[in-house]
Amino acid sequence: MTFKYKNVYINEVSTVVGPYESKGPLKDYFDMLFDKLTISEKTWEKAEIMLLKYSVSIVLEKAAESKENIDLFISGDLLNQIVSSSNAALSFGIPFLGVYSACASYVEAMIIASNMINAGQIKKAICGTSSHNLAAEKQFRYPTEYGAPLVKTTTFTATGGASIFISNEPSNIKIESSTIGRVIDKGQKDSAYTGAAMAPAAADTIYKHLKDTKRSIDYYDLIITGDLGLYGKEILIDYMKEEYNIDISKKLKDCGIVLYDLAKQKEVMAGGSGPVCSALVFNSYVLEKMKDKTFKKVLFVGTGALYSTTMVYQRCSIPSIAHIISLELVK
Amino acid sequence: MTFKYKNVYINEVSTVVGPYESKGPLKDYFDMLFDKLTISEKTWEKAEIMLLKYSVSIVLEKAAESKENIDLFISGDLLNQIVSSSNAALSFGIPFLGVYSACASYVEAMIIASNMINAGQIKKAICGTSSHNLAAEKQFRYPTEYGAPLVKTTTFTATGGASIFISNEPSNIKIESSTIGRVIDKGQKDSAYTGAAMAPAAADTIYKHLKDTKRSIDYYDLIITGDLGLYGKEILIDYMKEEYNIDISKKLKDCGIVLYDLAKQKEVMAGGSGPVCSALVFNSYVLEKMKDKTFKKVLFVGTGALYSTTMVYQRCSIPSIAHIISLELVK
Repeated sequence: MTFKYKNVYINEVSTVVGPYESKGPLKDYFDMLFDKLTISEKTWEKAEIMLLKYSVSIVLEKAAESKENIDLFISGDLLNQIVSSSNAALSFGIPFLGVYSACASYVEAMIIASNMINAGQIKKAICGTSSHNLAAEKQFRYPTEYGAPLVKTTTFTATGGASIFISNEPSNIKIESSTIGRVIDKGQKDSAYTGAAMAPAAADTIYKHLKDTKRSIDYYDLIITGDLGLYGKEILIDYMKEEYNIDISKKLKDCGIVLYDLAKQKEVMAGGSGPVCSALVFNSYVLEKMKDKTFKKVLFVGTGALYSTTMVYQRCSIPSIAHIISLELVK
Repeated sequence: MTFKYKNVYINEVSTVVGPYESKGPLKDYFDMLFDKLTISEKTWEKAEIMLLKYSVSIVLEKAAESKENIDLFISGDLLNQIVSSSNAALSFGIPFLGVYSACASYVEAMIIASNMINAGQIKKAICGTSSHNLAAEKQFRYPTEYGAPLVKTTTFTATGGASIFISNEPSNIKIESSTIGRVIDKGQKDSAYTGAAMAPAAADTIYKHLKDTKRSIDYYDLIITGDLGLYGKEILIDYMKEEYNIDISKKLKDCGIVLYDLAKQKEVMAGGSGPVCSALVFNSYVLEKMKDKTFKKVLFVGTGALYSTTMVYQRCSIPSIAHIISLELVK
């Protein structure tokens, strides 16, 4: 399902990160950096909640808006029952919609906000997301065996909070269209290789977007996925070529690879993941490179592996989804 | 945040239920009844997925629509990572938005769909939800101590799947307006008494709705909450009276109390809960009683306790939310 927008703009963004992201190549872009994973809280979950809260505070401050003026807060995260999002929503008291598409939650939130803004139903929205490396490890991978080696396809959940302020007030970056994806499952069962599960979902939504908008891949200066990682990215390139005869290799970057220095930060293995990974890269690198005119037209493809430990234990494969927003530099 | 709609209609609904609901007072309304909790599946989670899938199939059949004609499927459920919803979405291949507001997820889904339909962004949507008594018990209450008595404020997760087909094609029931709530937390920490956590959230959104629409409570023939249970309902009545000087006692019903015969079905304690509880009552009792003109104007208040076991173990209180849709009999 593809939507076209006339008057939806990105006005402000914020980024709050943990120690690993603070050592990565995008460190100079971020608003708030923590050198410890605790974020001065007593549990990983409370740390993640704080990361999201800080990001909402910062974006409100940058936009010089009080929380009472925001029509809607839309957010989703990986923690069970999306508790980071609901607790951040509690702090600010803004009407709240909780969403879940795993690591595509941030794009899902932006699509819902964009539709409402374009229709004049709301004027100002904040979309947010967060993840925390150890909160995610604890929830999805505990108990972790001591000394178990990581396989090379594993990704590393990013630690941070990210928010975006979207409204009908013109800025230099416009959300021009969006595409809601469908759930795809090609039978991948390895939870240490979610890039392989998500690549076909990314391909499906990219193809649908190009078809619906009658555009070729050349229309875009950058296709940025989040987060397929090193191997998932290669699968996406092959899949697009074989399935649709479209070569995206020259346009494609993946947020999981952009967020860290994979050569030096060996612990991230195939790259970053977690919903905040692509949100951090989008809010910093992508938007900055649009503002300096490196990229004028960008396709941002949020990819989510919709797996639960319960279903993986029942030997089910991993369904995935991808949602898209298309960005345009206005001036 | 309140929205007004001009052309959003409820065209078809479906209800699939388990053994406890099949013995309740609404049994004659339901489309598909199972006498065992297994739903012929090997795990409770797979059983819940099937309940939702059946409900989507039935609503498609009733509406005489093929899945290819549906613009959007919006769904949420209680299972971690909303796996029932994403697996149902996988089966039908309809573009999918996952949502989460606990037991208010069904109303959240209907609000998003209504906004898009009213703006002409989509024409046809299916919203769904599900829950399963033992899948929920396993996830939220395991390990359950043998012989532990249930406290009287406990609610009983309903087993079922429910779907609704909403479009811009006129029918006799219209979604006339909606209100998105904010997260409220008054410090309630007892996960066996979620009715007490949710009642203030219900009050907050009802008050906001009346204020935004400039209506008094007399405008509505029925206010139906889901799911506060016996004690939560009393708290809501008291709270509305004390906080806002509004008497809703004569108009108020609660889906958790309507779904079961509390005098005979002792196992449900203070009433039903789970996202499908209010969806089942809405799709059967509420809509049928609108069609026979018992109620012409109905306020449907979805209430969700946004708690996670992780946060309860960390001694956090339970944030809650309520979302509203307002229904009107057209002819």
